[in-house]
Amino acid sequence: MTQVFINGARDETNVREFDTLDSSIQELIRAANEARNNAYCPYSNFAVGAALRTSDGAIYTGCNIENGAYAASICAERTAAVKAISEGKRDFVACAVVAQQDTGFTTPCGVCRQFLAEFVTAGKDIPLYAARPSNLPLRVLCTSVLQLLPNGFTFHNGK
Amino acid sequence: MTQVFINGARDETNVREFDTLDSSIQELIRAANEARNNAYCPYSNFAVGAALRTSDGAIYTGCNIENGAYAASICAERTAAVKAISEGKRDFVACAVVAQQDTGFTTPCGVCRQFLAEFVTAGKDIPLYAARPSNLPLRVLCTSVLQLLPNGFTFHNGK
Amino acid sequence: MTQVFINGARDETNVREFDTLDSSIQELIRAANEARNNAYCPYSNFAVGAALRTSDGAIYTGCNIENGAYAASICAERTAAVKAISEGKRDFVACAVVAQQDTGFTTPCGVCRQFLAEFVTAGKDIPLYAARPSNLPLRVLCTSVLQLLPNGFTFHNGK
Amino acid sequence: MTQVFINGARDETNVREFDTLDSSIQELIRAANEARNNAYCPYSNFAVGAALRTSDGAIYTGCNIENGAYAASICAERTAAVKAISEGKRDFVACAVVAQQDTGFTTPCGVCRQFLAEFVTAGKDIPLYAARPSNLPLRVLCTSVLQLLPNGFTFHNGK
Ligand SMILES: [Zn+2]
Ligand SMILES: [Zn+2]
Ligand SMILES: [Zn+2]
Ligand SMILES: [Zn+2]
Repeated sequence: MTQVFINGARDETNVREFDTLDSSIQELIRAANEARNNAYCPYSNFAVGAALRTSDGAIYTGCNIENGAYAASICAERTAAVKAISEGKRDFVACAVVAQQDTGFTTPCGVCRQFLAEFVTAGKDIPLYAARPSNLPLRVLCTSVLQLLPNGFTFHNGK
Repeated sequence: MTQVFINGARDETNVREFDTLDSSIQELIRAANEARNNAYCPYSNFAVGAALRTSDGAIYTGCNIENGAYAASICAERTAAVKAISEGKRDFVACAVVAQQDTGFTTPCGVCRQFLAEFVTAGKDIPLYAARPSNLPLRVLCTSVLQLLPNGFTFHNGK
Repeated sequence: MTQVFINGARDETNVREFDTLDSSIQELIRAANEARNNAYCPYSNFAVGAALRTSDGAIYTGCNIENGAYAASICAERTAAVKAISEGKRDFVACAVVAQQDTGFTTPCGVCRQFLAEFVTAGKDIPLYAARPSNLPLRVLCTSVLQLLPNGFTFHNGK
Repeated sequence: MTQVFINGARDETNVREFDTLDSSIQELIRAANEARNNAYCPYSNFAVGAALRTSDGAIYTGCNIENGAYAASICAERTAAVKAISEGKRDFVACAVVAQQDTGFTTPCGVCRQFLAEFVTAGKDIPLYAARPSNLPLRVLCTSVLQLLPNGFTFHNGK
């Protein structure tokens, strides 16, 4: 069996064929892929799309938006998240990320993991799907926000 | 004449009465104020709203969204901006920010100034209006993105 | 056996008594604790200290430094890291974080995990120790940068 | 008289010859230039150095340190600042930034302006000098943190 390299690590466990996924997940991944078209990435030339589904069934999409001062850049996942949150929706039920890197899947960066984990409430984890725009048959890394940020930092004193 | 303290500095020049502003600006300020309602700010208890108008007349609004890891927080201005940009709109013609601090006006932080300045193209500055939700008669600080980020950093090599 | 709550999750596996740790690790944890004294945290009142050991045996310490614009804040771990890197040291062999939260251990936030992971080269993971300043007998969460950022994001195209 | 382009804007006022500056400022600019050597910038290939002098006469230097997730990058100015602050020094009396861009001077980005402005206390502004590593005769943009962040955002409620 061919082994899949996920950002350098070998892990076959959580990779599935796109066609075997629930249709609502397929729709979410397609929305994330579509969102890549609006990416503003003149510095990296690396377009990323993301999509978040909220508990009411709505989909919010985002792309990465870079800045000449790299630190001021905002990723696709956070763009999608703030769109939903600023519309009063914080109850995320699934997240998809789509980008093309030669090796492995593009997962959310640590900043985005931290941002999304803030909205994992009552232990209700958010499933997360990472895919590439092409590479047929399309394979998808299936994970979750809590899996990607184990022993996550939360600030208890502050609430 | 009473002097107005703008974040510590005395400056009467750019402060105007809300009623004297163009109706499109009044509408933008009202939209920013309304957007405060969705702020997620359990750490600061400081709700900020922002609104951006794009050249096609549309208004995109945002609120601040905080994180237990403070550095992962996103301000109202950037929330509004990424919403527009991820919908393919980058041509901003005006920005409004509304928040309540006891002294002076709440202006965009340096991160947001840097983020917005990336989209000041062809020298077309973005007028910016900072107001408080109450304090009648409502007074508005009238400035602009380039005024708030003089000699701004841009990364020429990278484009 | 008493169960330990680690930021909400129960996990006994990686928790050890301070006294059983290698003396070089004990020294690192003490350095992180000491570094808390310089924290600038007027907004959270939550002081964090961190310490990084480089391969030459040197220790670099850091504290959290907050900003009125929360997004511009820098954590203790990144403060320690940039101190070392700007002195030409990027070969980290261990990291310690010390802070006092009532429940569980204070682990690095996602931003810091992402920042540190950039310097995990050739698969050489960085052991990470999270402790509280008091709570005797002192217990320590023993983990690592890669364990805290599984399937981490790395940008292959850009290098 | 030849006009100098400062990031797109024409401004002759604040540009001076290196040789005419106070020797302590010359020393600071040289330190910033030297600090560029430790820059970690595999994504932009744009090395920046910074130096801060504290009221006790000490110099703290920094370089930019990038991350594959651009948002997690830290600039030279902030690296220098957190080094000083984490050593208990917050009383900055001068700042220098050195980088090579073809046009104009490299000034601090908005994130760094916000970060530094937090430590402008009691209205004691921090003079700031931006220079290029070569381009003889060396010319220097002379400005200040408050000049670069007019009507700056400060969070009064939070202190
Ligand atoms: Zn991200
Ligand atoms: Zn801001
Ligand atoms: Zn952190
Ligand atoms: Zn900067």
